[in-house]
Amino acid sequence: MRTIIKNGTIVTAVGTYPGDILIEGEKISAIGLAFPAEQTDKIIDAAGKYVLPGAVDVHTHLDAPQMGTVTADDFESGTTAAAWGGTTTIVDFATQPRGGSLLQGYETWHRKAAGKAVIDYGFHMVIRQLNEQVLPEMDLLVRDEGVSSFKLYMSYPGDLMVGDAEIFRILQRSGENGGLVCMHAENGDVIDLIVKKALAEGKIAPKYHALTRPTKAEAEATHRAIALAEMVGVPVYIVHLSCADALEEVRDARQLGLPVYAETCPHYLFLSIEEYDRPGFEGAKYVMTPPLREKWHQDVLWKGLAGRDVSVISTDHCPFCIREQKEIGLNDFSLIPNGAPGIESRLMLVYDGGVRQGRITLNRMVELLSTNPARLMGLYPRKGTIAPGSDADLVIFDPEAKLVLSAKTHHTRVDYNLFEGREVTGVPITVLSRGQTVIEDRVFVGKAGNGKYIKRDHYQLV
Amino acid sequence: MRTIIKNGTIVTAVGTYPGDILIEGEKISAIGLAFPAEQTDKIIDAAGKYVLPGAVDVHTHLDAPQMGTVTADDFESGTTAAAWGGTTTIVDFATQPRGGSLLQGYETWHRKAAGKAVIDYGFHMVIRQLNEQVLPEMDLLVRDEGVSSFKLYMSYPGDLMVGDAEIFRILQRSGENGGLVCMHAENGDVIDLIVKKALAEGKIAPKYHALTRPTKAEAEATHRAIALAEMVGVPVYIVHLSCADALEEVRDARQLGLPVYAETCPHYLFLSIEEYDRPGFEGAKYVMTPPLREKWHQDVLWKGLAGRDVSVISTDHCPFCIREQKEIGLNDFSLIPNGAPGIESRLMLVYDGGVRQGRITLNRMVELLSTNPARLMGLYPRKGTIAPGSDADLVIFDPEAKLVLSAKTHHTRVDYNLFEGREVTGVPITVLSRGQTVIEDRVFVGKAGNGKYIKRDHYQLV
Amino acid sequence: MRTIIKNGTIVTAVGTYPGDILIEGEKISAIGLAFPAEQTDKIIDAAGKYVLPGAVDVHTHLDAPQMGTVTADDFESGTTAAAWGGTTTIVDFATQPRGGSLLQGYETWHRKAAGKAVIDYGFHMVIRQLNEQVLPEMDLLVRDEGVSSFKLYMSYPGDLMVGDAEIFRILQRSGENGGLVCMHAENGDVIDLIVKKALAEGKIAPKYHALTRPTKAEAEATHRAIALAEMVGVPVYIVHLSCADALEEVRDARQLGLPVYAETCPHYLFLSIEEYDRPGFEGAKYVMTPPLREKWHQDVLWKGLAGRDVSVISTDHCPFCIREQKEIGLNDFSLIPNGAPGIESRLMLVYDGGVRQGRITLNRMVELLSTNPARLMGLYPRKGTIAPGSDADLVIFDPEAKLVLSAKTHHTRVDYNLFEGREVTGVPITVLSRGQTVIEDRVFVGKAGNGKYIKRDHYQLV
Amino acid sequence: MRTIIKNGTIVTAVGTYPGDILIEGEKISAIGLAFPAEQTDKIIDAAGKYVLPGAVDVHTHLDAPQMGTVTADDFESGTTAAAWGGTTTIVDFATQPRGGSLLQGYETWHRKAAGKAVIDYGFHMVIRQLNEQVLPEMDLLVRDEGVSSFKLYMSYPGDLMVGDAEIFRILQRSGENGGLVCMHAENGDVIDLIVKKALAEGKIAPKYHALTRPTKAEAEATHRAIALAEMVGVPVYIVHLSCADALEEVRDARQLGLPVYAETCPHYLFLSIEEYDRPGFEGAKYVMTPPLREKWHQDVLWKGLAGRDVSVISTDHCPFCIREQKEIGLNDFSLIPNGAPGIESRLMLVYDGGVRQGRITLNRMVELLSTNPARLMGLYPRKGTIAPGSDADLVIFDPEAKLVLSAKTHHTRVDYNLFEGREVTGVPITVLSRGQTVIEDRVFVGKAGNGKYIKRDHYQLV
Repeated sequence: MRTIIKNGTIVTAVGTYPGDILIEGEKISAIGLAFPAEQTDKIIDAAGKYVLPGAVDVHTHLDAPQMGTVTADDFESGTTAAAWGGTTTIVDFATQPRGGSLLQGYETWHRKAAGKAVIDYGFHMVIRQLNEQVLPEMDLLVRDEGVSSFKLYMSYPGDLMVGDAEIFRILQRSGENGGLVCMHAENGDVIDLIVKKALAEGKIAPKYHALTRPTKAEAEATHRAIALAEMVGVPVYIVHLSCADALEEVRDARQLGLPVYAETCPHYLFLSIEEYDRPGFEGAKYVMTPPLREKWHQDVLWKGLAGRDVSVISTDHCPFCIREQKEIGLNDFSLIPNGAPGIESRLMLVYDGGVRQGRITLNRMVELLSTNPARLMGLYPRKGTIAPGSDADLVIFDPEAKLVLSAKTHHTRVDYNLFEGREVTGVPITVLSRGQTVIEDRVFVGKAGNGKYIKRDHYQLV
Repeated sequence: MRTIIKNGTIVTAVGTYPGDILIEGEKISAIGLAFPAEQTDKIIDAAGKYVLPGAVDVHTHLDAPQMGTVTADDFESGTTAAAWGGTTTIVDFATQPRGGSLLQGYETWHRKAAGKAVIDYGFHMVIRQLNEQVLPEMDLLVRDEGVSSFKLYMSYPGDLMVGDAEIFRILQRSGENGGLVCMHAENGDVIDLIVKKALAEGKIAPKYHALTRPTKAEAEATHRAIALAEMVGVPVYIVHLSCADALEEVRDARQLGLPVYAETCPHYLFLSIEEYDRPGFEGAKYVMTPPLREKWHQDVLWKGLAGRDVSVISTDHCPFCIREQKEIGLNDFSLIPNGAPGIESRLMLVYDGGVRQGRITLNRMVELLSTNPARLMGLYPRKGTIAPGSDADLVIFDPEAKLVLSAKTHHTRVDYNLFEGREVTGVPITVLSRGQTVIEDRVFVGKAGNGKYIKRDHYQLV
Repeated sequence: MRTIIKNGTIVTAVGTYPGDILIEGEKISAIGLAFPAEQTDKIIDAAGKYVLPGAVDVHTHLDAPQMGTVTADDFESGTTAAAWGGTTTIVDFATQPRGGSLLQGYETWHRKAAGKAVIDYGFHMVIRQLNEQVLPEMDLLVRDEGVSSFKLYMSYPGDLMVGDAEIFRILQRSGENGGLVCMHAENGDVIDLIVKKALAEGKIAPKYHALTRPTKAEAEATHRAIALAEMVGVPVYIVHLSCADALEEVRDARQLGLPVYAETCPHYLFLSIEEYDRPGFEGAKYVMTPPLREKWHQDVLWKGLAGRDVSVISTDHCPFCIREQKEIGLNDFSLIPNGAPGIESRLMLVYDGGVRQGRITLNRMVELLSTNPARLMGLYPRKGTIAPGSDADLVIFDPEAKLVLSAKTHHTRVDYNLFEGREVTGVPITVLSRGQTVIEDRVFVGKAGNGKYIKRDHYQLV
Repeated sequence: MRTIIKNGTIVTAVGTYPGDILIEGEKISAIGLAFPAEQTDKIIDAAGKYVLPGAVDVHTHLDAPQMGTVTADDFESGTTAAAWGGTTTIVDFATQPRGGSLLQGYETWHRKAAGKAVIDYGFHMVIRQLNEQVLPEMDLLVRDEGVSSFKLYMSYPGDLMVGDAEIFRILQRSGENGGLVCMHAENGDVIDLIVKKALAEGKIAPKYHALTRPTKAEAEATHRAIALAEMVGVPVYIVHLSCADALEEVRDARQLGLPVYAETCPHYLFLSIEEYDRPGFEGAKYVMTPPLREKWHQDVLWKGLAGRDVSVISTDHCPFCIREQKEIGLNDFSLIPNGAPGIESRLMLVYDGGVRQGRITLNRMVELLSTNPARLMGLYPRKGTIAPGSDADLVIFDPEAKLVLSAKTHHTRVDYNLFEGREVTGVPITVLSRGQTVIEDRVFVGKAGNGKYIKRDHYQLV
């Protein structure tokens, strides 16, 4: 199979130039000014459009149990929505079962994904308990299974939270086996006390989810995560950073040359705490962790993205329907399933609200959505760039096309959209995964099971 | 009883001027250019000398159990040594017994001190467990007993350490009852792991005490303590800050206007990690927590003292004899009783090595040794200054007298001196406690039991 | 002459305590709990009142030529207004005449003041040209005449501005003769270009005075002044600092331990750029340099005052009547005489808006208004404190008395008040200068000529 | 003409991957996994080697008059040496003649370069006097002549230095015409005074060149340049930044998101002030401006390069022979021609001492030496990357080849080498300029006159 993408404007993290792309089988085989059409099976005309490396989303929760329910998307619906949005690889969170081993969790997630994914996927491993077998299992996962990153929670005591001693030992082990530790950084002990106090005072509405999780609790945990990693001498990756206070901790560390990386999400860039004031229970749509912050934090995050202190934009796609799922917490905000959908709209939002607004360059967008997550999560150069030898994961992106974000038209199974009614300019038109077309001229032509599990390498620093 | 101190140069935190001091009973009744000698019981000639407010030492461990032994000084020998050094008030650490109540600890310490002290004293309360009765006991101690400060350990897990949830609740309660929380800031979980690893590698010598307690572990805990206090909205006092990394956290907080206070100790200002390289077991003399640091930290601490980011110099006097006591850890550094003597030499060292070296002014010295600790610990203006109405706790200080610090001549019961053989210039010659002479021309004339327990007020911010 | 101030609450930079003050002749001779009334010529009852050291104003422009006119107060009206406000010492700016010598300027200012002042005064010397004789004249002024500070302008090119080479040489000389250099820190070259551009665009209203003097131009010059002083190794004193940007430069320097001092003024603490929007020409009342800034700067300045990065509050009293004087610039803001009145209201405003609002403590107020300016300008301990041996410059201050600030009732000759109609709580009732009463129960009882020229010592660092 | 570079490892600012490069005429026409050899004129085998984009040196002084002499390299010898070192584009400094116009200077430099250059070149324009015609000439140069950058000196008063008013007006104009202003940032007024003082004290040896140019004088000017640019709202490019103090100013600005760029040079990264202690007059070899600094600055600069606060490494190639040229200053360091050679060794030094030492990545090296200077100076994507459509300026670099830097073997005409005897690993073997081979297997095959003048576009922010 030989495909040429013709006449497009190729965009990478470092450059923008007109060029054709020749795809042979699953790989890009050449990039040039003009390739002859002979012996070509398929020609895609990208005139007037950008050709981007497929976006990489390293923070998704598909088919994931939480608070007695399970996220609304499985690997089929979730990866389908991702593909519609120009994302061609995800890294999801396999989770150690309570009282069980890492490998059990790992296998469980393989079963969830098997035969369903329409794009490629990998797994991080969530460690919730540091028992006897966990440390050698970490080694095995990195070495044999391509699970080269782990996630720890500094929040949710009694459930997912691990203490400083556990964190320290896991960081030490990651230094030996080459894994990368990702941190959910919030001080869970403090937040729990604040939450209990609020509930005791009868504060049960969704907005108290935000009011009981101070930015300082995120910043403190961020600082601590960095300090522990610095003492061990390993890098650390802060997931879903939401606020200026936490970013300041990251910046101070990077200023010293420490390998500290921060990821943020579109909802922190475009939405703010006012959403919780919506009438009735509608605020529950915006109950994710960390919560939405005061509006001024957005500018600080954008500056961090432009100035290189924030390295990745992921989605933290963790969808729960408002009906039946979010409603679990109708009378107690602390029972509302935490999370919100976002897997489909990331590229469109960041282009529309970031690149078009002059907040970041087009190349920086590619770096934040593709190249950096691919590098940090050991997918590069297979994923994350347009170069000979790389997987032909490509997005034909029309910078002038318009689309209205809406639950009526999106492809995730969740029954609301965080950005309902927002029109964006700039839409992925055609999407290829390893040379195969998944979306073609805004029509889904992919197939469940075509997506493959990717064994990841060690992280590359960026 | 009417005493006049004549012809001296009075020194306070803000000024230096010639003047006489009139003492009636236990109080200063007037300060003037020249008082008539009539009807005066006693005249002390301070010509050529400084008259300083008695020094206040808010960090001592007298008659204190630790690691199966007890500190070498009781309240008699300890306060006697203090008086020799120009200190006229101490605040010692009463400690909640394991499984017991605060009041039990408080009463135990009263029994230790009763009839023994030669100068005035107060108690902080150490909280090691947050059980049912602790929070109301805190209220009672502040309101009725003049125990207006509490100490928490973020180190020594399984013994003294309290977790973030406990700290947070205690800080909240202090916000209600007006107490001040003092923090031993080191990340105990991390240090314990590093210590165990070192021991497992056969590293047993005293120097490993220092090498297993990284400055970053102190800085992290300092940051966390500040963050928790900031979230609650109360001040916090960091005890025995030893290094630049931790000071930077304090400075960042103070820059923002937060009520964060740091105390350091003479050994961090004058000694460094090289001491642990002394032959044989001699390094054990310098085993205190935090440990001595690399020499360059000293300059940073001095700048902090001059620039107002460090507010207090205390001694952390916690003496253990090298024989029999320190020797418990002969084959395992982690068993060496933690602590070192210092109650007698503080004023002399800070004058000699600080004021005479131009690192701080004479007035700043008075502020750091007397005025600030008195204010922060609720003793001011009764203690900590020279003003009409204040207690006549006074030191006649000869700035030109010389003295060699030595275990042979010091007055604590411990069998070594951290500064053995160091000659200092500037010596307290005569010391008064509430109008009574305790040291007179370098002769002890005090009496055990003359020192009284002081019920302290709420802290004053400085 | 023997006076006792009885029953007051004495306030110094470091303490607040009840006490009597005994004055013999011009000096305080004793402070005590209670002095016998026998043989006393006068007893002032200060019950319920504070007794403060007289305020020291080190930035005034009396009888000062500018832009073809002269400030509205001479040394009699100006010092009278000062005394009404609790100020007992001023340091005014003697100015080198264009083309002339420092000594000519110095003598001119002596003639202006002779026989007129009702309180004590000193002179800074403004150097506007560095000709042959200036450097030795600096030495002579410091050594023989008690002019221990100099002022340079980095603004007003072609008139008062001196270049970096001149500044550097003057700083070097001050390092040799012990003078303190005070800087008007604004980049005059840049401002001049911005002003010319505005005028060319027809922007002539008073508000353009503010819009053409960006805070960054002040911050740049502040940074440069500090850098030059650091390279020479001498202290520097930044006059009338108005904004957060400049304060950040001062703070960064002080963080490093550099002897850098900043002074601000009440108008920067209480007024903001909105004043320029007043109808008609009324904005001209607020035309001073630097101009009023956006309101948020006020908070930053207050934090600097509380946190010790700003050391002095002076008035920059430079009064021009709105009629005839300010009106010179009716059709061109750049011709409006620069300056505003303030010599009388400083203590009341800072007490009412600072101490009563909890922004600074009472003791810090005394430090900022009396002790620090006295120390930095070589007046301490003669001025700036309440201690035996100090000049009996004292203010009996009623913290509950109220007064409405108004041009109708103030004592300067200027025809408007920056704070017209503002009611303040806290009023100086009785004011003594060297033991003589100047204001007695809100009645002026002073006398022109009673104020004496003070030969100042070298600065003391604070 | 059709050339294929086969089997190499292609390195760009963002990626490293195996690939072939197809060159047609002067341009890269395709990059691919394997191109057929048919119809190809030339095949270059790059197996085992890196293929880098040609390095871009935006700071050279060829055929440049200074202090009565002229730099030792003309455009032929200078560009030949550059090519040997893997540099394929330079931007040299055309200089306004004293009393003359920009265009005169521009034309003079065209005459110097005509027919001589072996690689492509552009010109910055040095403005030394802001007379009537300069501002419109700036516009013309940017618009018509591709001179899209200007250089100003804040040093050398009386010769090249321009004052703040001139700088401000030029920055304003650059904001209108899209030029980029480059700053030589040192406070010339201050340095001149320090130099004169040193000479007056008989300090004439080369080392006083370094001792009379404090880092603070560079930092102050850097801060001022940034402040002026910020007030105007335009970017600024700081040339040859040499020290931590100045870098801190750049970092603070970048932290705020300001478009501020810093360039450093290999001599600041590898040499230090000790070089001036060489016997006799040998220190004169190292007399360049700014001078070499204390060794610890090197680490800070490397961290700045790794952490993205320093954007470019250029050479400041400004060669003067030690004989006859440097010797002008034999008895007066201030007369030693300022400058040192470096045009040939940059890539080798940065690879050997930077990449191989783990201080920066290989991709970052390409960014610093090619991509960033090309972007900032309006040469990108024609120069600075490997992409279809870009000029075929390419370097075949052998990462294991070794070479000893020496005046005996280098290709500049200067009679010494700053790094004499230093062996480097990593050598450019073959160099192509617009598709033509200039260096082939370490043999020069280029031709004077083949290098062309490049009209540059506006800067791109990086």
